Amino acid sequence: MTRDDLDAAQRAALLGLIGDLADLARAETLQWFRRADLVAADKGDGVFDPVTQADRAAEQALRAHLARHRPEDGILGEEFGTEPGASGLTWIIDPIDGTRSFISGSPCWGVLIALADARGPFLGVIDQPYIGERFIGGLGVAQVIGPQGAAMLKTRSTTDLSQATLFTTFPEIGSDAERAAFVRVADQVRLTRYGLDCYAYALLAAGHIDLVIEAGLNPYDIAAPIAVIEAAGGIVTDWQGGRPGQSGQMIAAANPVLHAQALALLQKSDARG
Amino acid sequence: MTRDDLDAAQRAALLGLIGDLADLARAETLQWFRRADLVAADKGDGVFDPVTQADRAAEQALRAHLARHRPEDGILGEEFGTEPGASGLTWIIDPIDGTRSFISGSPCWGVLIALADARGPFLGVIDQPYIGERFIGGLGVAQVIGPQGAAMLKTRSTTDLSQATLFTTFPEIGSDAERAAFVRVADQVRLTRYGLDCYAYALLAAGHIDLVIEAGLNPYDIAAPIAVIEAAGGIVTDWQGGRPGQSGQMIAAANPVLHAQALALLQKSDARG
Repeated sequence: MTRDDLDAAQRAALLGLIGDLADLARAETLQWFRRADLVAADKGDGVFDPVTQADRAAEQALRAHLARHRPEDGILGEEFGTEPGASGLTWIIDPIDGTRSFISGSPCWGVLIALADARGPFLGVIDQPYIGERFIGGLGVAQVIGPQGAAMLKTRSTTDLSQATLFTTFPEIGSDAERAAFVRVADQVRLTRYGLDCYAYALLAAGHIDLVIEAGLNPYDIAAPIAVIEAAGGIVTDWQGGRPGQSGQMIAAANPVLHAQALALLQKSDARG
Repeated sequence: MTRDDLDAAQRAALLGLIGDLADLARAETLQWFRRADLVAADKGDGVFDPVTQADRAAEQALRAHLARHRPEDGILGEEFGTEPGASGLTWIIDPIDGTRSFISGSPCWGVLIALADARGPFLGVIDQPYIGERFIGGLGVAQVIGPQGAAMLKTRSTTDLSQATLFTTFPEIGSDAERAAFVRVADQVRLTRYGLDCYAYALLAAGHIDLVIEAGLNPYDIAAPIAVIEAAGGIVTDWQGGRPGQSGQMIAAANPVLHAQALALLQKSDARG
């Protein structure tokens, strides 16, 4: 099945279910956040890539919940891989996007949960458990619920790069060529900021910033941001202007005009890593 | 007068008052946070240095409160300069430390309020209004109150740089020489992260990270972090190991052992900008 096959009751049920999943992940991750005995393991690829017990515990809780309530759907998760489904729908989950923030006590990590059909993600949640803030987009919904209540998600109308605020997580983004491409955009914007992981996508969806450019992403990093940002009126592609995929490159923009300007700079020379 | 002249009742009153000031700043700044019509002005020095109406409104509210309740004390504020006092005590306030975070919608800005005598800051608050989280240190108190309740502030016991987490706000920190000195430390630590402004000092005081190294700071940026970190068991100096002052350089460490290791690397060659 695809998103187009869902009737109103099914859509409402899926919106309820993704909220339940986010609640589960919130409880699991908060148990571990800022605990003195939190141990970060090295995944062994030579790069410091912390995986916490919280990450694994939360993904297991979400998989168990989905097994009970959506046994026909597939699952793609960061920690425990792919479980094929029969329905044509796949849940894509990253219980803690931003593990480096998580182990540093910074609140700018997030729970990512998305639902995709063959065309891609069409429902997503970016949840920040410590702040108690949830950004949800898809199936007619584009909303943030947080400390100041509920509000619509709507991307900004900035159409001039010189007025734009750009975020990326690591200043040393990607390969040398990717870094050079990023700098071509960063040199033209008003403000470049670092370090927020998925929270930057939430800020873009909520209309506070204009661009997020990343490299080296994994499939479970990009699904929920795509759904939330598209629901809020933004646009997300890879650095070639196509659907984000295996390249790990992604550019999210508040609107198509800004997207085209930034994309042109990324592509000035070959930016593939 | 100095901190040593304060009796128990005066100490309690000052702890109450700094909480009231933080409450006032919280209300003023939250009115403006994430508002679509927030306008950031350019201070005109060629660098993008946003000043918001929230910054000014909050500082005015704090100054008015202090004029009523502590008319003898001096005030040093980011927006409206120095007002000399007769008591020997000075309030040092930065209503929004991290204006770039503030205008980007990121929750990692903070309200900084400190009280100093001739020896320096001895009471401080780092408050994050959106999260509802307050870090307070001095006069026998070292505490965080936030979404998960209250907890003691206590810095970490990490004594090996290779296990340390380091934060700074801007990857392009300071002058070329300052940047080189910073990189000597960053090359030795386990993890380097960017972008949290004063919130990084709060994380250090709360025992989640080990080092914060900054350059280009102003006097109103450093007073509250010094008080909060020292109350939590940490150590804060300039890059020469002395009291932070006009150089704008500051290193905050979880403990003296780690501080000595990082300081030695900063000083390997002349790191003054």
